[in-house]
Order: sequence, then C-alpha cells, then structure tokens
Amino acid sequence: MALQLEKTTREDIERLVAEYVERHVEQRVEARLRQLLAEDPAAKRVAIIASRGTLDMAYPPLILASTAAAMGMAVGVFFTFYGLQILKKHLKLAVDPVGNPAMPMPVPNIVSVLPGMRAAATRMMEGMFRKHKVPSIEELRQMCLDAGVRLVACQMTMEVMGIRREDLIDGIEVAGAASFLSEASQAHVTAFI
Amino acid sequence: MALQLEKTTREDIERLVAEYVERHVEQRVEARLRQLLAEDPAAKRVAIIASRGTLDMAYPPLILASTAAAMGMAVGVFFTFYGLQILKKHLKLAVDPVGNPAMPMPVPNIVSVLPGMRAAATRMMEGMFRKHKVPSIEELRQMCLDAGVRLVACQMTMEVMGIRREDLIDGIEVAGAASFLSEASQAHVTAFI
Amino acid sequence: MALQLEKTTREDIERLVAEYVERHVEQRVEARLRQLLAEDPAAKRVAIIASRGTLDMAYPPLILASTAAAMGMAVGVFFTFYGLQILKKHLKLAVDPVGNPAMPMPVPNIVSVLPGMRAAATRMMEGMFRKHKVPSIEELRQMCLDAGVRLVACQMTMEVMGIRREDLIDGIEVAGAASFLSEASQAHVTAFI
Repeated sequence: MALQLEKTTREDIERLVAEYVERHVEQRVEARLRQLLAEDPAAKRVAIIASRGTLDMAYPPLILASTAAAMGMAVGVFFTFYGLQILKKHLKLAVDPVGNPAMPMPVPNIVSVLPGMRAAATRMMEGMFRKHKVPSIEELRQMCLDAGVRLVACQMTMEVMGIRREDLIDGIEVAGAASFLSEASQAHVTAFI
Repeated sequence: MALQLEKTTREDIERLVAEYVERHVEQRVEARLRQLLAEDPAAKRVAIIASRGTLDMAYPPLILASTAAAMGMAVGVFFTFYGLQILKKHLKLAVDPVGNPAMPMPVPNIVSVLPGMRAAATRMMEGMFRKHKVPSIEELRQMCLDAGVRLVACQMTMEVMGIRREDLIDGIEVAGAASFLSEASQAHVTAFI
Repeated sequence: MALQLEKTTREDIERLVAEYVERHVEQRVEARLRQLLAEDPAAKRVAIIASRGTLDMAYPPLILASTAAAMGMAVGVFFTFYGLQILKKHLKLAVDPVGNPAMPMPVPNIVSVLPGMRAAATRMMEGMFRKHKVPSIEELRQMCLDAGVRLVACQMTMEVMGIRREDLIDGIEVAGAASFLSEASQAHVTAFI
C-alpha cells in the first residue's frame, strides 16, 4: 500500500508542481523581467564626443551634457581635435561666416574673408545668445562640472596639437579613445559633435 | 506509519520539485528571457539631431529618417542651430565650395570665394542628386512627415536665431533639448549630424 | 486513511513547492536575468557613419573603429558623401585652414584663401600626426580591415558623386542606408562623423 501511495504521490507532485509553476512562477518571472528591462541602465547614460572648436559648435555638447545631467543621467564628454579648445583656461572661441551659407546673416564669401569679419560674426553670435539668456560657454562648462558631468580631454590629440595639461581647466580627466568607447558601449545616447 | 510516509513524501516532494524546475522551468525562463531581450524596443527607435543647414548636409538626416521609418522604426529628428533652415517654408539651402577640399569638383579657395561660386556649386549639387533620382529636400521632408517621423524644431535656437513658428512648415513640433534626450535615451540609433 | 493522507500530501506538496520556488527558483532566475542583461550584445557593437572627407576628420572614424575592434567589438563604418574619399585607392585628403578658427595655427581668412595655403596646412597636419607616431590614414584603414572592421561604401552617394567601385580599395562592401540602420539598431555606440 505504501508503494501504491508513493506512486500516486509522485504523479500528484509532478502535476501540482507543473500547475504551481504555470500559475505563479511564470507570471512572477515575466513581471520581474519586464521590470529589469525597463530599468535599462543604458537609458541613463550619455557619451558625447566634442570635436569642433568654433563658438557655435561649442554649445551643443555642453547644452546636451548639462541638460542630461539635470535629468539625472550619467554624462561623459570626450573633447578631441578642435574640441579641446572648449576646455582651455583662456577661451578664444570664434565663429567664422566664411563657407557657412546657413549663418543667420550670411554674407558673400568675398566679403566674409576680409579682416575683421570673423571677429564681427563672433561678437554677433555671442550677443544673440546673451540676449536670450543662454549661459556662456564658460558658464555651461562650469554647470557641467558642478552637475558631475565627466569632462575628458583626448590624450592623443592633446599631444598632436601641442596642448599641455596646464592649458586646460581644472576638474577634468585626460584619457584615450578606449576610455570613451567603454563608456559609450553602456549608453543609449551617443553623439559625435 | 503515516509519519514515516510523510517524511518520505516531503523528501520526494523536494527532490521532484528540484528535478522539475531543472528540467522545465529554467529552460522556459531562459527562452522567454532571450525572446524579450531580442524584442529590445531600443532597436526600433532612432533619434537624430540635425544641426547643419547646408544643402549637402540636409540630405543625411532626412534620408536616414525616411529609410528608418520605411523599416518600421519610430523616428524623431530634432532640428537645431543651422539645421532649422531645413524646416523653413521657403528653403534657401546652399552649398559652399570654400574650405571643403573634399567637394566632388574642388576649386582653389581664391576662386571659390568669388561671387557666384556658391550659387554655381549649389546648382551643380542639386543637378547631381536630381540626375540620380534622389528626391529633393522638400520631397524628403514630406516623405518623413507622411511616414510618421516626428520633426521637432529646437525652441532655444529658434529664439536665438530669430526664427518664428510661422517661418517653419506645418506638421512639426517645437521642443527643447530635454525632449530630444528622453527620446534618444530609449533608442539604439542616435546621431548628431 | 489513504484519502486522509492524500489530502495532507496535496497541501504538503503545495506548501513545499511554494517554499522551494521562493527559496531557490527566484534567486536563480534573478541571477540568470542579471547575467543575460549584463551580456547585452549591443554593448559589443559599434556603427559609425563617416561623412567628411578632410584629412583631419578622416582620423576620428578610423581611430574609433580600430580601437573598438582591438577591444573585441564588432565594428562597421559606413562611408557616405565626402567620407567616400577615405576609401579611395589614391588618397588625396587635404585640410583647409579657411573658415576654421580652431585650427592649431589659425591664419586670417584673407591669407588662408591664397593659393598654396591648403597644401601647406595639409603638410603641417600630416607632420604633426607623424611626429607623434599616429598611423597614417592608409595605415589606419588597413588596420581596420585586418581587425575585421566592415568598411561599407554608400551606394547612393557613390552614384551621385560619380565614384566607381574600382576607384575604391579592395576588401570593402557597397550598401545602402538601410544596411547601416540595421547594424546600428543593434549597437550602443553609434556616431555620425
């Protein structure tokens, strides 16, 4: 009789386990899965390369970085090539009207190459941003540092361009492309500016 | 005897549950996991920033956006800085040979700054695209809207550059960088053009 | 008595299954879940668009691609518009000082448009990279191919710009924007250069 009972119990057990798993476990696993996927850590990371050193194109990496940091995201900006100019202690960013027919006030190239036109375009653009209460590049840069944005200078292009660590502001890091890539490989938002 | 039997049953139960879980549950959980990961919603989202306003660089954001939409992806393009020119009702996009030694027909800068060279380069490029049956910027823009691509004008740079809502085409949205970032943080394909 | 025992056993089974699942299964599922999420295949893919054809901007896509490949990532670079110049058998990449106030040695535009200035700036930049032992564009390109980086030429812009397959190096592919997008939609690192 004990033997008979064991057989029955074994079948019972198998059936009951199967029922329980179907009723409870799969739902819980599915819910936990969706929860973990929704927590997608890549959605909270931003990795930007800033490669340009004109006044106009200094705004986008700093505006995106400071906005993302304000949204609670972990942000790194990697400054390379002309973008290193944005990290200089003494900023001398300019904008050039020559060759950019999309400037707000385009001038013919034959005029825009004349001495003084670069300085005039730069002053005009600075004025336009100031008038609309957009922080300056110095201010945006500080806002980024204050918000915990990692500002990283590209070691290789620093060397190639003869830029020394002491030419750049405090609070930044110096690293290579591999450092950017390991950060970017964990981030949904990646951009080369 | 009942007690003895209960003991046996308890051990039986634990062993059978363990076997069942190993045989069935882990495989099912693994399969479901791989299925959900493969459904990765970020693979179906594209978020692009269009920052340039030359004729040549107006093509890439619109070609990527319309192609992605045709592939069934959810696409948003955020137009900022010179990229706002692409959303103007009256398009006046030009391409400039000056300072771009990679142009198909490069001319020395001393020639390319002469009056008329910008217009000539623009006509040449328009002709090259038309000849190869590439839709015009106006057509690509409309294809994007028809395919459900969200075209978003950057509010801050609209103000800074003195571009009014009525200067831009219908069917678009106006928003800030935070709006782009929340979209991009859910997308694998992100690009700053 | 057998009936009584079966009842007891059924309750026992249900309780024991629940206990077992809570003690063992959920932990194992959670661990496996975290393991699979950490294996995120998008973290091991890089998809880059190279759209520029100047000497300076030929470095970033090739440096990022070869570095990522050395880190074990699967990398594709899609060359479009002026970027096609980087794939030419006979490279004639130049850098232009005109209109770039962020050049290491900026010169006034009125000087930089003079004949010979483009060649001088190009020689200067080549020298700067060589001095710091950065491989040349030809070398970087070969390093990419050797490391299994997929180099893809954009079919549409090849046609528009009159570039023939035989103008480009061996070992590359020719494809359209949809091909880039399907690769990029599986990659965390995406960049338009």
